[in-house]
Order: sequence, then structure tokens, then C-alpha cells
Amino acid sequence: MSNPSLLILAGDGIGPEVMDEVKRIIGWFGEKRQLGFDVSEDLVGGAAYDAHGVPLHDDTMAKAQDVDAVLLGAVGGPKYDNLDFSVKPERGLLRLRKEMDLFANLRPAQCFDALADFSSLKKDIVAGLDIMIVRELTSGVYFGEPRGIHMEDNMRVGINTQRYTEAEIERGARAAFELAMKRGKKLCSMEKANVMESGILWRDVVTEVHKDYPEVELSHMYADNGAMQLVRAPKQFDVIYTDNLFGDILSDCAAMLTGSLGMLPSASLGLPMANGRPKAMYEPVHGSAPDIAGQGKANPIACILSFAMALRYSFDQGVEADRLEAAIEKVLADGARTGDLMGPEGGTPLSTVQMGDAILGAL
Amino acid sequence: MSNPSLLILAGDGIGPEVMDEVKRIIGWFGEKRQLGFDVSEDLVGGAAYDAHGVPLHDDTMAKAQDVDAVLLGAVGGPKYDNLDFSVKPERGLLRLRKEMDLFANLRPAQCFDALADFSSLKKDIVAGLDIMIVRELTSGVYFGEPRGIHMEDNMRVGINTQRYTEAEIERGARAAFELAMKRGKKLCSMEKANVMESGILWRDVVTEVHKDYPEVELSHMYADNGAMQLVRAPKQFDVIYTDNLFGDILSDCAAMLTGSLGMLPSASLGLPMANGRPKAMYEPVHGSAPDIAGQGKANPIACILSFAMALRYSFDQGVEADRLEAAIEKVLADGARTGDLMGPEGGTPLSTVQMGDAILGAL
Ligand SMILES: CC(C)[C@H](C(=O)O)[C@@H](O)C(=O)O
Ligand SMILES: CC(C)[C@H](C(=O)O)[C@@H](O)C(=O)O
Repeated sequence: MSNPSLLILAGDGIGPEVMDEVKRIIGWFGEKRQLGFDVSEDLVGGAAYDAHGVPLHDDTMAKAQDVDAVLLGAVGGPKYDNLDFSVKPERGLLRLRKEMDLFANLRPAQCFDALADFSSLKKDIVAGLDIMIVRELTSGVYFGEPRGIHMEDNMRVGINTQRYTEAEIERGARAAFELAMKRGKKLCSMEKANVMESGILWRDVVTEVHKDYPEVELSHMYADNGAMQLVRAPKQFDVIYTDNLFGDILSDCAAMLTGSLGMLPSASLGLPMANGRPKAMYEPVHGSAPDIAGQGKANPIACILSFAMALRYSFDQGVEADRLEAAIEKVLADGARTGDLMGPEGGTPLSTVQMGDAILGAL
Repeated sequence: MSNPSLLILAGDGIGPEVMDEVKRIIGWFGEKRQLGFDVSEDLVGGAAYDAHGVPLHDDTMAKAQDVDAVLLGAVGGPKYDNLDFSVKPERGLLRLRKEMDLFANLRPAQCFDALADFSSLKKDIVAGLDIMIVRELTSGVYFGEPRGIHMEDNMRVGINTQRYTEAEIERGARAAFELAMKRGKKLCSMEKANVMESGILWRDVVTEVHKDYPEVELSHMYADNGAMQLVRAPKQFDVIYTDNLFGDILSDCAAMLTGSLGMLPSASLGLPMANGRPKAMYEPVHGSAPDIAGQGKANPIACILSFAMALRYSFDQGVEADRLEAAIEKVLADGARTGDLMGPEGGTPLSTVQMGDAILGAL
């Protein structure tokens, strides 16, 4: 049997640097654990725009459709801020999500013991935090039509459309309930059903899907209260299910609670392919961090943990994913720190490559 | 000259209890400071639904249009959760906002020195925090058409429309810049211009209005990053300007940073009336808190501070507003605490009325 295939889209900013460390980790699994991957690489975001004038070339899109999993670094940067909306780096990412139909975006917000002091929140509020946010990723206001800026009575008007079908809400809800079954069996669904009809439909559909998962304790919360509760007492949550736009904001809020954005991975999953694996893309939650790009300072852990998620969700290698995560916890416990993880006490931060070395050493 | 007029809409849950204390404060200003008000009262939310079958009677709406300022308590409660969308308590509040055209919602997030320990955030991150969020309140996805749930191919589809004209963005932006001029001269505008065309228009219009306020330092931030930055380092902000939906979530997130939701007021301002005063409604940020309603436990301070905002923004009585705010800071510094402000050390909490007594005593 041939090796599973991976497409690496390192993208912009610190993307290529952190992805270099992932490549070394992939190499280690091939060599030491007989887990070989066929790795190819291509461009996305600003890098693709520079080469082709579009943030994702059609050939790259076709490749992404064809592989077992995509690993993405990060897109965007000040150089591209003034590009037309249609060719902004983000459009490349959004096209991948939409055309691969990656409807379930899994964003764990986990507080690493060794790093609990890093949070702006009090240690007892966040120590041991382990939430999974499931964000619907292919619908809602990100993709709804009509959209755009047009003239009305000599005035510009900006329009976007929040649109959800019950099928769209349902398939994401199933993914969230399945995850809840494997975790703490608690699911909180967030919307603004008090203000938005799309939120009413959201609440109704999630309630209907709940019938198939009676063991899961389901609650509903308005998204504004959700933001409050995440700040007040985040450990009350196990799995959160919410829409594309609320998920964008609430998952970033949750990520920041942990104090270590450079540590957080994500998985975007779609329907099963012919080989039974889901369509999948894995990416760190952090962005392209143009301010430190090219300096070898970036923390590669979020990107490496995204590969661990790939091992778990695409390749059914939970044991190997555990191994990789344990190695990372070990180096952190031993005090390995990139610049973003340095406390006020100071010390000499590790470079991106040195952090990669440390993790390889611990494996 | 006749006294300025106030319409009190105490609403549901703890609304009436906290409003009783406001009435005593209003009485004090009439008696001791020759600041008389003509106060009338009416129903809103579930209370109005119980009496009239609608969450806001047309007569009440007409009265609200007629007075110098509306003071609102809170709306909603579990009793009304299963009402049809069109008569939910929230619709009463939204109708007031829309028909009075209260486009600028001012939500201060302030951390009271005496209460800094209450935050789930570390003390040094929030001590001295003083942000003003200006939320656009009469447009966006809250009111955009088309909206609703309809059938398509035998499937339910939920739709809401995010819609902003440049005039709507502009008048809120002016309010935000004006406030920034009176404060730290820093304004951060938040949207998702990387994903939504309405966000692009938002950013463009705010940038244009900036030309009239060159002294203000303007920055733009994506709303997801905004949520992160609020959690990471909220003191970087002075005034934030954002849309109706982002404002709902981000202002709740900011409110929770302070750790004392029972302390936070808000003002919703519209166009100037014939007498030069703006159309205005003042309300606490907290909700109707059905779990403690009717028990005399609720903290009246947010509602009293909302009246202080009325003194400042509707009646040009900045000195009297300062007096009231100082009295509240004094009782807090002296250790007066309602139940929501009790730390782990315990003690006997003050009742709603006792807190009112303490503030009257300090005045
Ligand atoms: C880069 C941007 C388009 C994207 C989003 O808004 O979804 C990002 O914020 C994210 O959360 O992955
Ligand atoms: C009660 C509800 C309709 C309201 C809103 O969503 O605007 C509330 O959350 C608020 O922020 O004032």
C-alpha cells in the first residue's frame, strides 16, 4: 500500500518557518515509526499571489482535493493589506475551506500546565482548561449571498448574508455531539436566537439532533453571554458548537484564555473520501505574525500539534498523536521556551529550530 | 421652566428592584440639589406582554418618544422563553432602540479599584481599566432585511442580513470620535473586513470620518483579534467603535473583564431633539437575572450609574454625575457589598435597599 499523502501549504509570514519543523517531525515518524507520508508542497495566500496573481491557484486547489490531508501554515501580511478583496490572501484559505467542504472546524483551547502562568487570567480559572470548540466553517455570513458593496440613493451600502440550511447546521452538530461523546459528554450550543431567526433555526436543529445523543447534556447560550462565560469561568464548558462568525470570535477569545496562542492547533474536517478518511486541513490558530517573520523566533508548537491532530483525525494514529503531544509536554515541563513563552523572569529563548530539536530529542 | 421628563421602564426580573433604588436617588437630587424630574412609569418586556400581549405597547412607545430620557431596567425571563419571536421581551427593547433611532450605544468597561480582585483576570491586567465601547445600535444584522426562516427544497433555511449604509456607519463613528476627543484620543475600529464586504465599507467610512478628527489616533482591528486583545491586554484600548453584533459580543466580553457586571451602565443615544437634548435611553448592562429576582439581593449600582450617565449625557450635569459616581466609589471603598460582590472571605452582603441606603448616605 502506498503512503498516505500530505499537501503542505506553508503560506506567508512565519508559516514557512514553523512548517520546516513540522517537516522534520514528519520525517521522524517515517524513519522511526514506519509512518511514511508522501509529502508535496505548494503555495497559498500572499505567496501564491506573488507567484500567480491569485491567493490559490486552481492546480493547488485540485491537489488539495486529491490528498489525504492538507497542512496549512498561515496566510496574510501587511504587504497584501491593500489588495482587492477578491485576491486577498484570506480568500485562498476560504476557498480551500469551501471547496473541500470542511464544515467542522475543531479548535481545542487547552491550557498547558507548564504555561498556566502565561494567561492573563488567574491561574485557578484556567489551569487544566480543556475545551473543544466546533465551529461551522463553510456557511453563514462568510459565504452567504447576496453580498458586496453597492450604491443606493447615491450612498454606498455594504451587505452580507447570514444563511444556514438545516442540513448545514445538522452535520456540524453531529460532529460536535460525536466529539462530546468521546469527551465529557457536555455540549453547549451558542447563537443569538433572541435576535436572529437563523439562530432560532440553529437552536431548533441542534435540539433535534440531540435526540440521537441522549447521553450528552445539551445546553444553549446566547453568544454574547458565551463570551462572558468564557472569560468568567471557562472550565464550565466541554464542547461548544457555534456558527462560522461567532466561532471565529469565540474561539479566538477561548484561545487567548490559555495565554499561549503559539500552542494551539486546529483541524477542519469534511465528508469521508472514498478511502474512508475525511477531507481534512490542519492549521495553527495563530496567524502569520509578520512582525517576527523570517527571524527564526516563531513557536512551531501550534503547527506541530496540528500535525498531531492530523495523525489522530485523518490517520487513526491516536497512539502516535499521544506520543507527539507527550513529547511537547515534556519539553515544556523541562523549561523549553520560545520567545512568546518567556515570562518576566527572562532567560534565553529557543529559536524555532531549537524548539524543533528539543521536541525531536524528546520523541 | 418645567422639569425635564424621565420615563422609567423597569421591566422584568430584578429590573423593578434596582429601579426602586434609582427612584430614591432621583428623589434625592430633586430635594437636595434642586434637580427635579417629572417621572412617569410604564411597562416593557415580559411585564408588558403579561398586561397587553405585546412586549411594548404603542402608547408606551409614544411616551418614550416624548420624554427627555428613558431609564430601562431589564427584560426577559424563563417564563417568556417559549413565546413567539415577534412578542419576546427582547422585541420591546429592540423596538425602543430602533424607533427612537438610538444609534450610539455607549458601554463603558471600567474596573473599580475596590473591586479589581473580582475579575477572573490578573489584577495588574485590569486594575485601572477604563474603556468606552461605542456600539452601533440600530442597524446591522439586528434589523437587516430579508430575514426569517423559510422552506427551500423541503428544507428550512434561516436568513439574516447584515446591512450598513455609509450614513449609518458615519454617524456612529462621529459619536465615537467625539468621545475619543474627550478621553484618551485613541479610537480602535473593529470589523471583519478580511471576510465581509460590509466590514470593508465600515473601515473605509471610519477612515474618512477620521479626517475630521486628526488629533485622534485611529487603528483598525479584526473583531476576532479584538476579542483576543481584550482578554490579553485590555488597557491598550481607549474608545472602541464596532457594529451592532460585534458590539454585543465584544462589549459583554469587556464587561466581564472588570469582574463586576452588576456595576456597568450604558447609554443609548440618538439625534438631538427640538430642545437640544439627544434622544436617549439608559440601562444597566446586566440582564434580568431571574435566578435572584424578587429576593432583594440584586446590586442596584449599574442601574444607578446609568442614571449618572443620564445626568451627564442628557442633562449636561457632569458635576452632579461626578458627585453620584464619587458616592458609589466611596461606599465601595468603605466595603459596602451586595451579594454579587462578595469575595471568598465572605461576610454579610447588603440587600438592594441597604446598598441604596449606603449610597444615599454617602451623597
Ligand atoms: C484569516 C481569516 C479569514 C480567518 C477567519 O476569519 O476565519 C481566521 O480568522 C480564522 O479564524 O481562521
Ligand atoms: C437582550 C438583547 C436583545 C440585547 C442585544 O442583543 O442587544 C442584549 O444582549 C444587549 O446587549 O443589550
